[in-house]
Amino acid sequence: MIAGLDPTLLLWLNLVGTFVFGLSGGLAAVRAQLDVFGVVVLSAVVGLAGGIVRDLLIGVPPETFRDWRYLAAAGAAGVVCFFAGPALDRFQRGVQVFDAVGLGLFCVSGASKALDFGLGPAQAVILGAITGIGGGMLRDVLLREIPTVLRQELYAIPAAVGAAVAVLGREAGSLSPVFPLLGAALCFAVRMFGVRYGIDAPREPPRRRSSD
Amino acid sequence: MIAGLDPTLLLWLNLVGTFVFGLSGGLAAVRAQLDVFGVVVLSAVVGLAGGIVRDLLIGVPPETFRDWRYLAAAGAAGVVCFFAGPALDRFQRGVQVFDAVGLGLFCVSGASKALDFGLGPAQAVILGAITGIGGGMLRDVLLREIPTVLRQELYAIPAAVGAAVAVLGREAGSLSPVFPLLGAALCFAVRMFGVRYGIDAPREPPRRRSSD
Amino acid sequence: MIAGLDPTLLLWLNLVGTFVFGLSGGLAAVRAQLDVFGVVVLSAVVGLAGGIVRDLLIGVPPETFRDWRYLAAAGAAGVVCFFAGPALDRFQRGVQVFDAVGLGLFCVSGASKALDFGLGPAQAVILGAITGIGGGMLRDVLLREIPTVLRQELYAIPAAVGAAVAVLGREAGSLSPVFPLLGAALCFAVRMFGVRYGIDAPREPPRRRSSD
Repeated sequence: MIAGLDPTLLLWLNLVGTFVFGLSGGLAAVRAQLDVFGVVVLSAVVGLAGGIVRDLLIGVPPETFRDWRYLAAAGAAGVVCFFAGPALDRFQRGVQVFDAVGLGLFCVSGASKALDFGLGPAQAVILGAITGIGGGMLRDVLLREIPTVLRQELYAIPAAVGAAVAVLGREAGSLSPVFPLLGAALCFAVRMFGVRYGIDAPREPPRRRSSD
Repeated sequence: MIAGLDPTLLLWLNLVGTFVFGLSGGLAAVRAQLDVFGVVVLSAVVGLAGGIVRDLLIGVPPETFRDWRYLAAAGAAGVVCFFAGPALDRFQRGVQVFDAVGLGLFCVSGASKALDFGLGPAQAVILGAITGIGGGMLRDVLLREIPTVLRQELYAIPAAVGAAVAVLGREAGSLSPVFPLLGAALCFAVRMFGVRYGIDAPREPPRRRSSD
Repeated sequence: MIAGLDPTLLLWLNLVGTFVFGLSGGLAAVRAQLDVFGVVVLSAVVGLAGGIVRDLLIGVPPETFRDWRYLAAAGAAGVVCFFAGPALDRFQRGVQVFDAVGLGLFCVSGASKALDFGLGPAQAVILGAITGIGGGMLRDVLLREIPTVLRQELYAIPAAVGAAVAVLGREAGSLSPVFPLLGAALCFAVRMFGVRYGIDAPREPPRRRSSD
């Protein structure tokens, strides 16, 4: 089914992405003082929701749900957060690094899967971005916040950039893992650059800024 | 696949509906001070979500996502809102008119598609209403508001009325576009009538009113 | 399709569960002062959403939407709540009993359906729990609250316990309705025990409690 990328590599990218996203969800739940079940659910939602939405939009049964390894990765992240949350929380920067790794892995794997199922390149880029940001959006909705990704910070743009690199490579006829890995790395770099320098996406069109 | 309505007409109804709904989503995002990405996402959500939910409930891969024209219509609405939002915002009434047009078009096309795929008439009316109001509900959830459609104004009722007209026509054996267009027009008229006279759906049963 | 459980029994379990969950959704809507449409929609969401999410995660078209009897059960619950809501509201305990009955029925039927479609036992337990708690989570999101199930009370754990009993029975080779009914009863009992004694799921790991 997956013709583009080495299946084992794709699986590992996805499992690692699920776990690190699960950590980011579980830590948000610990901060919001949810109970043990809430922490595990938030981990699972952030780790799995992006992939589930991706598969529903492609029109195939959600793979991440049928394969117990994804459930185990997301659940393990939740248990880690519940028991070690306050300790992990001190390493804010570490969590952002994990989250950026997950973003890079998911945007690339989402775009690759969309191409595998015959969607066009533009749709594949959008689907890659949705796979990357979907879990975090749902996390914010469940915690009753306007999704961060809609309000501030460079988050969706790195995901779209990473997905675009993977799609461009495939469109150029390459089936090697070079382009997807390059896309994931570029997404990670742009995201961390934005975190480091506190860059937000523009909130109003450039020409209006002078009139304030 | 689409036997009931002229496919080209159905496509155009859907594309125009997607664009005008996209405008309503994008303007809400501008008002909530989201960044450029948030504006485009809200446009896409309001423009596309109704149709995506409709297709998932029917059990087919979401058509609006595979067809780049829907993505382009929703994305264009977002870009227009980001650059011209404050100007558009002055024309509140204009936006409500657009929104009512979208509501009419979506409730009719949603009901028609449900019949095309063999759902019963009652399900088709409900699915038409969901197609019409789904995007707006998701918009309100993302902006952390209780969906307007659940609290006030005649919004779901016009959508159900329009869908019912389209379904009645089909049940009567007609495949002409007269009934769907009549349904869309009736939905538009009822909605604008409600806006004009500030009519809300009843909040408590009639017999209780005297006891207050 | 349904090999495990007597189809008529499964249907009735599901219809009764849909109605009692619909009551719990409609009463929450009456309390939040939604209009008549909002009350019916909340009833439908809480009554139907768990099953719809279950079917989407399994990868089949949502059965509860195609079958008018589910729509009728959920809609009837909404109408009852709109007209008799304040009266019903006085019987808070009664509502919690209904809700616990629905939880028991849904977790068992969700797990059974997952097994029928070839998912593994762990996935079936999780899917059973999602079927039970999904509607209530969506109800809280629409009413702009952090889902109760994530914050307090024994709610997800009884659902998982009930689903596990049904799955264990099937894994042991039994196709009789004994295990599912036992699972539903056990879920109901654990849930009501939690309500009676006000037990919450733990909010922090046990070993940390002494350090506070």
